[in-house]
Amino acid sequence: MEIRNPYLMFLGDAPDQLAAKTANGVRQWRPEWCLGQLRLEGCKADIGLPDMTLEEAAGKGAKTLVIGVANRGGRIGTSWVDTMLKALDLGMDIASGLHNKVADIPEVARKAAELGRSIFDVRHPGRDFEVGTGARRPGKRLLTVGTDCSVGKMFTSLAIEKEMRSRGIKADFRATGQTGILIAGSGVSVDAVISDFISGATEFLAPANDPDHWDLIEGQGSLFHASYAGVSLGLLHGAQADALVLCHEPGRPHMRGLPHYKLPEIDECIALNERCARLTNPDARVVGIACNTSALSEEEMRRVLGDLSDRFGMPAVDPVRTGVAAIVDRLV
Amino acid sequence: MEIRNPYLMFLGDAPDQLAAKTANGVRQWRPEWCLGQLRLEGCKADIGLPDMTLEEAAGKGAKTLVIGVANRGGRIGTSWVDTMLKALDLGMDIASGLHNKVADIPEVARKAAELGRSIFDVRHPGRDFEVGTGARRPGKRLLTVGTDCSVGKMFTSLAIEKEMRSRGIKADFRATGQTGILIAGSGVSVDAVISDFISGATEFLAPANDPDHWDLIEGQGSLFHASYAGVSLGLLHGAQADALVLCHEPGRPHMRGLPHYKLPEIDECIALNERCARLTNPDARVVGIACNTSALSEEEMRRVLGDLSDRFGMPAVDPVRTGVAAIVDRLV
Repeated sequence: MEIRNPYLMFLGDAPDQLAAKTANGVRQWRPEWCLGQLRLEGCKADIGLPDMTLEEAAGKGAKTLVIGVANRGGRIGTSWVDTMLKALDLGMDIASGLHNKVADIPEVARKAAELGRSIFDVRHPGRDFEVGTGARRPGKRLLTVGTDCSVGKMFTSLAIEKEMRSRGIKADFRATGQTGILIAGSGVSVDAVISDFISGATEFLAPANDPDHWDLIEGQGSLFHASYAGVSLGLLHGAQADALVLCHEPGRPHMRGLPHYKLPEIDECIALNERCARLTNPDARVVGIACNTSALSEEEMRRVLGDLSDRFGMPAVDPVRTGVAAIVDRLV
Repeated sequence: MEIRNPYLMFLGDAPDQLAAKTANGVRQWRPEWCLGQLRLEGCKADIGLPDMTLEEAAGKGAKTLVIGVANRGGRIGTSWVDTMLKALDLGMDIASGLHNKVADIPEVARKAAELGRSIFDVRHPGRDFEVGTGARRPGKRLLTVGTDCSVGKMFTSLAIEKEMRSRGIKADFRATGQTGILIAGSGVSVDAVISDFISGATEFLAPANDPDHWDLIEGQGSLFHASYAGVSLGLLHGAQADALVLCHEPGRPHMRGLPHYKLPEIDECIALNERCARLTNPDARVVGIACNTSALSEEEMRRVLGDLSDRFGMPAVDPVRTGVAAIVDRLV
């Protein structure tokens, strides 16, 4: 399952910029795949691509209509369905990051089947997985882990991929969430996998590779998140990571969605991740800390990153503001 | 979803006694619910109940036909389907521990719908769950954890329920696997839940209760099992257990299904389970060790249990050979 590019990015009638967050992520990391954006009447989002009709996009060779927008209340309206049907008629596949499955819309599923087009509902694993075996496999792997959800694991993994590729290192981002899958063109939404198969799905996602090849695996959740830690542990075991990068947002008041839970300390987060990771890779270690310091001044950022780096003896970076070169330096 | 009893236990054409393991577990723990057994031609299993036709069982008030037998190669033959259809006609529901869903057999599903009967495919959660919140809830909870899979977690949980009830303590076994669910009449097959909802499903399974009520939650897998640890961690967080009982089989050569993984040491297994459990219940602690010593002589068993008890300062029992009274003593 590989999503074909180039993409036409569908923003629908997004009520604000945030609703098009997924589309924006794809444009940011894969600008060369994004031909243009398609906006319906009333759309308040703009991801900075040329506006384009379906026909124009098809004329320029668009292979996939990417639905990278949140829909209101889970309802997929008629205007969206009409757009999808027409895209199929014009030769495009559909890839969607919606919660609801596009493949569950009867007329869209029917037309796709008739025309031999593919529908990628990237939040839903479209296949079964084997149970994980924990058997060692060649190739190098890095997994981003976190003190919490939504602390920049995808961004950090992608930034490391970019930095490694710029140095000529063989490296592939491995996506585990919907935005990441649209960016990578493939991947597994691990939080939607049946729980017996979390580590197995991760083994499938990051298979045996060349000894000098790096898989950069997008982490999910946190071992310290009371809702999602099972997913994080399955990922950690399945990844067999040689290197872990700890992602963190300094100053966050509590765990995301859980006001009654405070964030773990960095040292205990490093210790528990290393301890658990070593079940399947005895050499696993945390090699760097990646912070989202967007709430801090330049001076505060320097102080926070300096303190973390001194305290833990490893690079501490903000992937947006400082880049991740210091972490890659340490790996090569 | 509560499976109605009494049960008629269906053994089909089980090729040997092991194929009827689930039915045997139900008979062992809920003899008062088991009216009889129904065996087809060629059945080599016998769980020690009176043989009974569907009509005889219906006449004695059987409410549910329980399919507690493994089928060969995942195929459900005509003779099984005929039995199910007739049971529905005679007023029974169907509860099945098969991998394949009975509800996916069109003629059985159709008849059940027509007659208003229920089909319980206990390996498949028949509902959606909320994401876990980690919010504290009243009532006391005990979870069995393990050095490995299949080390007696269900048996130990049931033995503790029985011991507690015999002392007049309010206690309920909470089932997380197919045999346990047929024994309890309800439960959630947690390893079949979507991975984002493992802890949420566990919170649903063992909800708020009286302050002096004990839920005895059947554990699954092990934090040290490379295939299934994600399930174990979600269970540990969702259970919010006050007490953990560590289950173990002394002398087991390697992790179940993973010849390349040895078993963890007892001390590290206690430490990691307590550490992770304390995220959602800071008072969580391991209160006893339950061993399956069936491979040991009486003398060896005494020595092994005595050593464990001395070393860890807590009761070490074999639920089958010594009972679990020493663990319950410690809890009350």
